This record gives sequence, C-alpha cells and structure tokens, in this order.
Amino acid sequence: MATSEFARLPGFRDFPPEDLALRSHIQEAWRRVARRYGFSEYDGPPLESLDLYVEKSGEEIVGQLYDFVDKGDRPVALRPEMTPSLARILADRSRGMSKPIRWFSMPQLFRYERQQRGRLREHFQWNVDIVGEAGVGADAEVVAVAIDGLRELGLTSEDFAARVSDRRLLNAVLGVVGVASDRRSAAFGVIDKIERMPAEKADELLRDEVGLNGAAVERLRAILAASSIDELADLLGDEGGADEEMANLRDYIGILMSMGLADFVELDLRIVRGLAYYTGIVFELFDRKGELRAICGGGRYDRLLELVGGEALPAVGFGMGDVVLGELLAERDLVPEYRPRVDYFLVPITEDQRAELLRIAHVLRERGHSVAYELRERGVGKQMKAATREGADTVLLLGPDEMERGCVVARDMQTGEESDVPLSELA
Amino acid sequence: MATSEFARLPGFRDFPPEDLALRSHIQEAWRRVARRYGFSEYDGPPLESLDLYVEKSGEEIVGQLYDFVDKGDRPVALRPEMTPSLARILADRSRGMSKPIRWFSMPQLFRYERQQRGRLREHFQWNVDIVGEAGVGADAEVVAVAIDGLRELGLTSEDFAARVSDRRLLNAVLGVVGVASDRRSAAFGVIDKIERMPAEKADELLRDEVGLNGAAVERLRAILAASSIDELADLLGDEGGADEEMANLRDYIGILMSMGLADFVELDLRIVRGLAYYTGIVFELFDRKGELRAICGGGRYDRLLELVGGEALPAVGFGMGDVVLGELLAERDLVPEYRPRVDYFLVPITEDQRAELLRIAHVLRERGHSVAYELRERGVGKQMKAATREGADTVLLLGPDEMERGCVVARDMQTGEESDVPLSELA
Repeated sequence: MATSEFARLPGFRDFPPEDLALRSHIQEAWRRVARRYGFSEYDGPPLESLDLYVEKSGEEIVGQLYDFVDKGDRPVALRPEMTPSLARILADRSRGMSKPIRWFSMPQLFRYERQQRGRLREHFQWNVDIVGEAGVGADAEVVAVAIDGLRELGLTSEDFAARVSDRRLLNAVLGVVGVASDRRSAAFGVIDKIERMPAEKADELLRDEVGLNGAAVERLRAILAASSIDELADLLGDEGGADEEMANLRDYIGILMSMGLADFVELDLRIVRGLAYYTGIVFELFDRKGELRAICGGGRYDRLLELVGGEALPAVGFGMGDVVLGELLAERDLVPEYRPRVDYFLVPITEDQRAELLRIAHVLRERGHSVAYELRERGVGKQMKAATREGADTVLLLGPDEMERGCVVARDMQTGEESDVPLSELA
Repeated sequence: MATSEFARLPGFRDFPPEDLALRSHIQEAWRRVARRYGFSEYDGPPLESLDLYVEKSGEEIVGQLYDFVDKGDRPVALRPEMTPSLARILADRSRGMSKPIRWFSMPQLFRYERQQRGRLREHFQWNVDIVGEAGVGADAEVVAVAIDGLRELGLTSEDFAARVSDRRLLNAVLGVVGVASDRRSAAFGVIDKIERMPAEKADELLRDEVGLNGAAVERLRAILAASSIDELADLLGDEGGADEEMANLRDYIGILMSMGLADFVELDLRIVRGLAYYTGIVFELFDRKGELRAICGGGRYDRLLELVGGEALPAVGFGMGDVVLGELLAERDLVPEYRPRVDYFLVPITEDQRAELLRIAHVLRERGHSVAYELRERGVGKQMKAATREGADTVLLLGPDEMERGCVVARDMQTGEESDVPLSELA
C-alpha cells in the first residue's frame, strides 16, 4: 500500500500517533517504576566507537553491528546494547560518586538481525542498573524493578515469571556432579541451549563434550529441572561443594518473598545468559505460556567497569525490550485504546468571532488546557464534526448574540448539556 | 580527566542524570505546549535510506550526513532532519486522514559538522507541523506554538522574538524594486547571507550579481530594514505589485495579535531560511541580545509531500533544537536546580527489621511513592547520611521497640519532627 517513492528500512518502525501512544504507555510505566525504586534517568549517545563493543559484547552482537567509518575516519557503531555506554560513562566519573549508583535509561538499540517474522532491527530497551553494591540486596532490588515494571502495565503472576539462576552456583553444581574444571565452560554452553535442542542431542553433548557418564548426565538433568531452592537442596544432598552459593541464592529469594513477589520467581539453572560478561545471579522474565521470546534478561556483571578502564565496581542490571512486551500486552488485551482528545474545541458561528476565538483559545492554553479549532472559515456543522473527531470534551460556541450578552455557550460533548460562560471568566 | 580507555565520540553528549534533567525539562515543556495546541506526537526511525535526503535536503545537509552502506548493501544515513521522514510517513497514509494533520515529534538528529566551540554533531529537535491547510491560520498557529514553547520555559519577550518573512512577499518586493525574474534566486542567496557580510560586499553583490543600480540597492536596503508591516507598506508606496502578499502577511500578524503575542513578532525580510523546500511564510526565533545562533526556524513548505511521492498537501512547521535553547536558559538562569529526591528512605535500626522493611517498602511503592534504603547492613548514622544524600522527604525508622509497639517512626527531614506511624497503616 506504500505510495511513497522512498521506503522505510526493513526492520525499522514508524511511530504514527496511535503507535507512539503504546510506546509512551510502556515507557511511562517503566519510568514511574524506576523512580519509585529511587533510580535516576540517564542517557548516552546512540553512536559510539566501534571498539567499545568489539571486545566487551558477545560475538553474536558484534556480528550484527551497524558499524561504519565516519567522515573523520573513526570506526563507529550504532549502540547494540546500553551496558558498554553505561560502563564508559561511569568509568570517567564513578570515583566521585556515592555508592551504590542507581541509574536507568530507555535507549533505542540497533542490531542487524536476519529478517524474520517479529524480528526487528531496532527496539527500545529499559536498562536498570545498580553499581557499587556486591550483595544480593542489589540483585533482588533489580529483579523486583523488572517484575514491578510488568505489573505496572497490568500483567500478573498468571502472565509471567522471573526464572533465576546463579552462574557461580551452576559452576559449583557442575563440580558436585563431576564436571572437570576445564569442561565447565563447555557445560555452560550446552546448558545455555539445552531447552532448544532434542534431549538425545543434549545427552550426547554432555557425554562427549562435557565428559559426564550416563548417571551423571541423569543427575545433572534432574538438578536442572529443579524449580525451587528446596528441591535443589534435596537433589544436591549433604555433599557440600555449593553451600555458600546456595545460601546466597536463598537470601536473594528470601528478599523477594519479603517484598511479596514470591509468586513471580522460579529457580531455573538452565538460565545462563550467553557467555558474555555475567558473573553471578542471572535472570530472565518469560511469559507463562512460553510462546514469546524472553521479555527481559539481566544479572550481575562485576568485572565490566574495570574492563573498560574504570573503577573496579560490582554491578547488576537488566534490559527489557519494548517489542516482545508489546506483543504480550496485545495478547492479554492490555493495550489502551488510542483516541485523540482535547479539552476544548472552539466554534465561531461567523468569522466575526475569529479574533475573540483566538484570544480565548490562548487564554485557555495559558491555563494549561488543550484547545483546537478550525484554522479557516467553515460551516458550523463541519466544525462540530471536527470537534467530535478531535475528541473534544467541551465545545465553546461563539456567536454574535452570545457575544452581545457577554458570554459563550459551552456544550458538554458527553451529555449534550449547554451552559453560558461569561467572557469575564475567559479574560 | 577521562580515565576510560574508550572515549565518547567528539560532538556527542552523555546525559548523566543532572544533564538529562535539563533535557527532560525542555522536552516536557515542548510536549505540554504541543498538546495544548491539539498536536499528536509521532516518531520515525533514526536511520533512513540515503536517497530520502540526497535530493530533498539542502546541499549543506547532504555534505554533513552520517551515511554508510548497511550489511544488506543499502545506502543509509542517520537522520539529519525530521521533515523528510514526516513526508515519507504521511505519503503512505495521509489519504485516509482528516485534515489538517497536527503532529509533533522530538527526534535526535545527526550532522557531521566541523568541530567548533558549541557545535555538536547531534541534538534533539522539536518538530511541529500542520499538514493539509494552506491558509495563514496554520502559519500563525505554528509560530504561536514555537513562541509558547519558549514562554513555557520562562523566557519572555525581553529574551527572544520571532522574526518573520514571506518568500512570496520577498519575491514580489524584489519585482517592485526592479530585480529581473532570472535574478530573483541570486537575490535570495545574497539576502540570506546579508547579515553576515560587510555592507560594501553586499552592495557589490546586489549590483553585480543581482543587477540593481545604486538607487535600487538603497531602496532594497531600506525595505529589508523594515521591522513592521506598516513600515514596509510605507516604503513600498502605492505602486502595487505585492498587494496580495502584503494582505496575507497582515492577516498572519493580525492572528498573532489576537492571541496576545504581538510583542514576540517582528517583520524581517532578511529571513530567507536557506534555499531548500520553503515556499511561503518563514520565521526564525532569536535571542534579543543576538549572541546565539537562531533558536528555531521554520515556515511553509507546500510542495515537499508531493516531491516524496505523496498526496499534494500544503504544510507548515518548524524545528527547535535543544542545544542553543539550553545555552539561552543557562544565560537567563532558567535551568532548574538538579537535586535527587525520594519520598521515603527506610532505616532499620538492626538487621532484624530487614524483612519488615522490605515489606513496607513494597507497600509504599505500590501506592506510588518513591522509596530507597541501604541494600546492606550499615550503622544508623551512615544510613541517615544516605537518606540526606538521596533527598528523602521522610525517613521511616524501624526499631525493635517500635516494632513491639506496632509502629514505625516517621521523621520529617525538613522540620526534624518525628511521629509514630502504626504498622496497620502500612499493610
């Protein structure tokens, strides 16, 4: 249906008002929730030096960069994620700042992904991070923000859950079931993909690549299927080897229980979050029906700031995109109806009232009201139709007789009731 | 002072919270004013096909594009201005829409400008457009939005003015003073730069390039110096030749007078707005001291939508950037002080109150309050210092004695007054 000679780039969205309304609805909810948790908003440039991503982001991301050389011969890239910019900004200023630092942002991010249904090349992502606090209190605070971000939009524990894991705990568990130290990273790789491969294929990899025997594979599978900390504790038995990590995760879940968010949290050791910069507790938010991709992912990344040359500060955070979330809201019928509206629509009966109309319009706008009117002469019938189309709460009718009486007529567009408003109230 | 190994790109800004606060302050004012005038917000992609700009934008802009070839071999560019995207979006959908269309947007735009003090390579720009209305009512409405956008930020008619012109009127005036038809475009070029060149140089160009004799140059200079429509009418005399254009501009200024905005508007025929797509009334907003570059520029562009393959629709709009405006606000001491604040800071006297603290924090957040607390065990003194640093209105102290009494102590951080709050009110 496009008639323009110029097409929008594939994977990019236009936001006409009815679509921007949903984006704003989501972003305003994100902002309200972040502020309730005492976070401050920041932003960075959408364009950064290429080297900020090359070594720090995962390989998958680097392969999908919008990168080029600028007119000053600098290799640059559109930001594919926000955390490297956050780390860069804090590297320059964190030393003078009180800790912990609680910052959030809502950047548009860019990845050249293969074209697939529902896959875009840009999205807006809510980034929420606590920097400078190593304890599980920060881990729990951050996942609580993510959960409340979705609750603020009307989603409940019937709709979604946070699946949490801990990369240190998984590492310890792998030790308990007998994975040699030099096979741990191979094991992380298999577990990261285990939900998306046939069981036989996974078993084969756990035997051949990770070096487990049949009994150990079965035990690991049972552990990975545990959905609560108590179940996991039972499966690990009294052998020890993961006690500290278990206690840590227990504290974390205890905090979320105290907040009243227990219904939203499940243990799931299969959550690994790629192989990038995470170092501790990690989590993803999923729709319970499991039909959509993850809504949100995050975790602890205690070494990133040091890696970009800053102060060695522990950090934890998440990113939540607007695209999958928008799909979920649409599925659950939680997208607010878009309808234009203005407080007042002003209708001159004849053009003689135009100057008075302009004066009154500006007075009402000065008082903070939204006001519209036809910008040229039109019949009263057409003007009333326009008032309806613009969603006017009240129409002010300016006629010669009313002017003589020193008033205008206000018509309530819901009830149809009319009343006089003295001009002295509109001065 | 940068300690990061990775530098921000030159000409780009980071927005730590204290800087984002000013950006938000400006953008929220823009949004409020646009809504008061009944405009709806839209957005487009920051990356577009290169050809969208190559023919439609001025030469200066094309030379400053951030353009490259994407991984799918498409020539693309970061948007240097918003109007081409607006035209593209409307070309695909305007036929089904009621007119006039009143849209606004606040995109970040990108130009690779030569590095100079105060020149950046990105800025946020308020774009406000009325599409589908050819009359001066739309021209006046749009400049009123621009003026009120600045007034909303605390600026007055002492601080800034709109200088308005009309390219059709200037064309007619050039005819009146004797510029041949084939020299009009050369004359526009000289007048566009006349304020930035020595008088002798301008006179020389008007003689040699535009073909005027000494008396005509002097007459044109006097006309260009006219700052009101009456002054201009006197200078033009009764010869005719620009009557229709004069009447049009008189109507335009009459509308702004009816709105009470006369103090903000000056005639200035030297305002030409480059040589790009403008076709009628054009304007710029300047600080009265004349120290800064134009704060805002806009005008009528009746042929652009057709040019990008859409419906032939008249249009008028402006762009106002955040950078020059930010400088003006700083100069006039109109930048609000940034200070972090939260409604409540919660202080446990001992760690035994942690679970109750978490519960209360979540209850208060559910009620829409902002709440912070230390994420790990700390002495009460340190916690109180943190409360002050976070800008807490109220500190809630949770101690073992109070818990036993079934309450917490609320301390008003302004007055220091303390009072008991029953736990039943925090359930």
